Amino acid sequence: MGFMPVRSWWGWGTIENRVTGSEKTQLLGRVTQFLDGNELREHLPPPVDSLGMSPSRITPPAALAHLASSDPHDRAGHAHGKAFRDVVRNLRGHVKSAPDLIVRPECEADVLRVLDWCSDSSITVIPYGGGSSVVGGVEARFDDDRLVISLDLERLNKVIEVDQKSRAARIQGGVLGPHLSDQLRAHDLTLRHFPQSFEFSSLGGWLATRAGGHYATGPTHIDDFVESLRVVTPTGITESRRLPGSGAGPSHDRLFLGSEGTLGIITEAWMRLQKRPTFRAGASVSFTDFMAATEAVRAISQSGLNPSNCRLLDPMEAFINAGSTAAGGVLVLGFESHDHPQDARLARALELCADFGAEVQPMKSDGPATSADTWKSSFLRMPYQRDVMAAHSIIAETFESACTWDRWPEFYHAVTKSANDAMSELGILGVVTCRFTHVYPDGPAPYFGVYAAGQWDSLLGQWDHIKSAVSEALIKSGGTITHHHAVGRDHRPGYDQQRSNLFASSLRAVKSTLDPAGILNPSVLIDL
Amino acid sequence: MGFMPVRSWWGWGTIENRVTGSEKTQLLGRVTQFLDGNELREHLPPPVDSLGMSPSRITPPAALAHLASSDPHDRAGHAHGKAFRDVVRNLRGHVKSAPDLIVRPECEADVLRVLDWCSDSSITVIPYGGGSSVVGGVEARFDDDRLVISLDLERLNKVIEVDQKSRAARIQGGVLGPHLSDQLRAHDLTLRHFPQSFEFSSLGGWLATRAGGHYATGPTHIDDFVESLRVVTPTGITESRRLPGSGAGPSHDRLFLGSEGTLGIITEAWMRLQKRPTFRAGASVSFTDFMAATEAVRAISQSGLNPSNCRLLDPMEAFINAGSTAAGGVLVLGFESHDHPQDARLARALELCADFGAEVQPMKSDGPATSADTWKSSFLRMPYQRDVMAAHSIIAETFESACTWDRWPEFYHAVTKSANDAMSELGILGVVTCRFTHVYPDGPAPYFGVYAAGQWDSLLGQWDHIKSAVSEALIKSGGTITHHHAVGRDHRPGYDQQRSNLFASSLRAVKSTLDPAGILNPSVLIDL
Repeated sequence: MGFMPVRSWWGWGTIENRVTGSEKTQLLGRVTQFLDGNELREHLPPPVDSLGMSPSRITPPAALAHLASSDPHDRAGHAHGKAFRDVVRNLRGHVKSAPDLIVRPECEADVLRVLDWCSDSSITVIPYGGGSSVVGGVEARFDDDRLVISLDLERLNKVIEVDQKSRAARIQGGVLGPHLSDQLRAHDLTLRHFPQSFEFSSLGGWLATRAGGHYATGPTHIDDFVESLRVVTPTGITESRRLPGSGAGPSHDRLFLGSEGTLGIITEAWMRLQKRPTFRAGASVSFTDFMAATEAVRAISQSGLNPSNCRLLDPMEAFINAGSTAAGGVLVLGFESHDHPQDARLARALELCADFGAEVQPMKSDGPATSADTWKSSFLRMPYQRDVMAAHSIIAETFESACTWDRWPEFYHAVTKSANDAMSELGILGVVTCRFTHVYPDGPAPYFGVYAAGQWDSLLGQWDHIKSAVSEALIKSGGTITHHHAVGRDHRPGYDQQRSNLFASSLRAVKSTLDPAGILNPSVLIDL
Repeated sequence: MGFMPVRSWWGWGTIENRVTGSEKTQLLGRVTQFLDGNELREHLPPPVDSLGMSPSRITPPAALAHLASSDPHDRAGHAHGKAFRDVVRNLRGHVKSAPDLIVRPECEADVLRVLDWCSDSSITVIPYGGGSSVVGGVEARFDDDRLVISLDLERLNKVIEVDQKSRAARIQGGVLGPHLSDQLRAHDLTLRHFPQSFEFSSLGGWLATRAGGHYATGPTHIDDFVESLRVVTPTGITESRRLPGSGAGPSHDRLFLGSEGTLGIITEAWMRLQKRPTFRAGASVSFTDFMAATEAVRAISQSGLNPSNCRLLDPMEAFINAGSTAAGGVLVLGFESHDHPQDARLARALELCADFGAEVQPMKSDGPATSADTWKSSFLRMPYQRDVMAAHSIIAETFESACTWDRWPEFYHAVTKSANDAMSELGILGVVTCRFTHVYPDGPAPYFGVYAAGQWDSLLGQWDHIKSAVSEALIKSGGTITHHHAVGRDHRPGYDQQRSNLFASSLRAVKSTLDPAGILNPSVLIDL
């Protein structure tokens, strides 16, 4: 008999994998080390039947009835994404954005039928992949009382065709990370795209939000793995030719990459694949000065060595997530290839680090756990641990950006100061951490964490105050409002400042063409 | 005293650098080896005052008069790009597409003023960078007698600002390759983007046409070097934030990359730069079987070794352009870095070649010229030599594409057969050559040459017949109508088949928003 894990309606992942027992005790113990004063009372999720959701107002057409669900548990689970503020609202029983209906198409023709029906009936459609949005991207947050369906693409989950010679596959948009990996493993291939949300996010979601993968340099963004896209819009289907490269006009695919469900539903994509790496070399490097460490990373990012991992943790991040007390933080370096040894590249990268006062700890795959190993296992558990913290009134959230090197380190100081100032204004104790998730020759992508002792009754407002302050700081300091979390509804104020008005007009013109009734994910990215 | 070379109005480059003397004799001797029967009479360009151009019908506003030229030589020089069919038409004195006026803005405000004036006066604007288009991109080819200006951006030619830390520079769009290189050399940096047109093409032109650089893998396309763009449209200025990476909505810059002057004028760009390479390793490899050679290249392209050069010449190309008699063609391999030695990468690439029966000739920088060296010097002279061939009624033209590996070698056979069949139909003797200019993990970018003994009186029709046949073959075989030459007016039939109708509608919607009067480069890419 198969065992089917149950997805949590209110928090990350599955019920079975939630943080319990000693993991929970240890986590809360660690947190209270630096967040003294937190009340630490656990708030349990309310039963779904106590949420007081209004009954669904939508009856699907008979032909689509078998795809639709108005089950309260299903509706509550589709009310929000998985940001800290989503989890807190769920725990407080605030799910007024629950859609009227979940519709789960089984084929592309179903998607076309749903969009036709909703265009004709003025029903808003929120595209839903794995539901892991942390920017309000899958939430029906509207001022009016419009009818809303959540279009859950989980049944479009197949690898349809594999081209071994070109190392590419035609894949349906709704497939989640692990299921995709399983299907590709049978062909000895991998997409090698591992966002932190991997287990509960979909290919279509990665494409629609321009997801960043786990790797620091080289091909890691989902954008770069796209050979062609097939998109169902309310006006019909648009598809690009499968090509390794083309200079024929502006890129069709780049228009839909990052469109966040506002222009169409990505039902299929031809994706570039790779062989699994067999050669590896890695090291963990400690620094005595964090700004010297960032200069070492700049040298590596401009060297052409292209490490798979080049994850610099600032001292606070290194302490909290890797147990390191290095005064200048820790750099986790890794090189991978399926074709040739990587030792010379690692050696050269370590030479560059030595120029900036680094102390090297080689990684031994059979040896005792190093900082790097500790950090990796912690990485996968983070969203689950975040849920426990939220339930104990601990503010635990992240945000990310990118800036050019000339703006760093002023950027770092301005953003961390804005977070610390915001916590002071709130009169709460907290810490700000930073790591680089990706690095480019022309700048880093810093990823910040905020951990603070909140109060249950004002938790959401406290986080919103901090978020607003840091967003303003990072836009003012020349960064992007998002490097790989997308814009959604939460990042609209920053995005509106960042993008040009004429580009917004251009996007609106495209949306009016492809989605004339304006049913697709309104208020995300642009307003019509 | 400075010496200012004079641009040819009818052919490639400058008058001073045209092919003469022994170079000419040897070229024509080589050609007649395999194109027996050509008449070989030279047709000289007609004097400009014999072209019978109608007088300019446009009087510029007083404020713009100092930027405008209606000089007949200038107008004739802006009538066409530099394709074979452009040169032939020039030699025959057919310049009815000469614009009424050339306008050369000196600053961005001038560009705004010109677009305002032309929008108000319904004057068509053809943006003009270096004028090296080979796809009818800068030609006023219209059925009606509309008024036309050529907007020549040559005076916007400055590197405005250099950011050494991020290795990036803010550069005006009109700068030509050599002038850009000179300005960046002063900062010990390079864009390292070298299309064959380098000497006579501009940054803005590279961006607007998605130019491919000289290098075979890794960052070589102009697209990948863009940090931000500043574009003047008839509706105003749009600019993206300077960022190393961002996931905030669809890419602003990718909408304008490949827009071919239809949406706006790229007046400035922040471009990613590099240090000049100091470590090099290279070899020239001969094969006995061309399809085995392409399999070797596939293995290299999927290895992650990322050679700078990976230029595979088919047997005919190797014979004509590198004097090699290798039955399976020649592969020119090169690796470069400014940071670390490349010998191990070359050695591994040669191992992969050996798996496919390769014979290696190491490249000696001080030794006698090898096939690779011969080919490189020939590369830079090719457009000049093409002019001599055209003047002697020899059809000499190239076209390029890209396809996935699963379609290769059928693609190769279908395209070469279509060219050979077309020449048979015309009853003319000719050869088809092929090389890979770029290779991707999922497919090659083949670049074809056609050299045939034409007749002066029907030369244009002969080439058009061949071009039409090969275009049909490459679209039918799953390729792109252009890999890096752009669409322009010449590639419209293939492009219209290749791109989706909904994407064309989307582009039209954007154009209507940014260029409501439809003045910018009409009939390129889309029709309003």
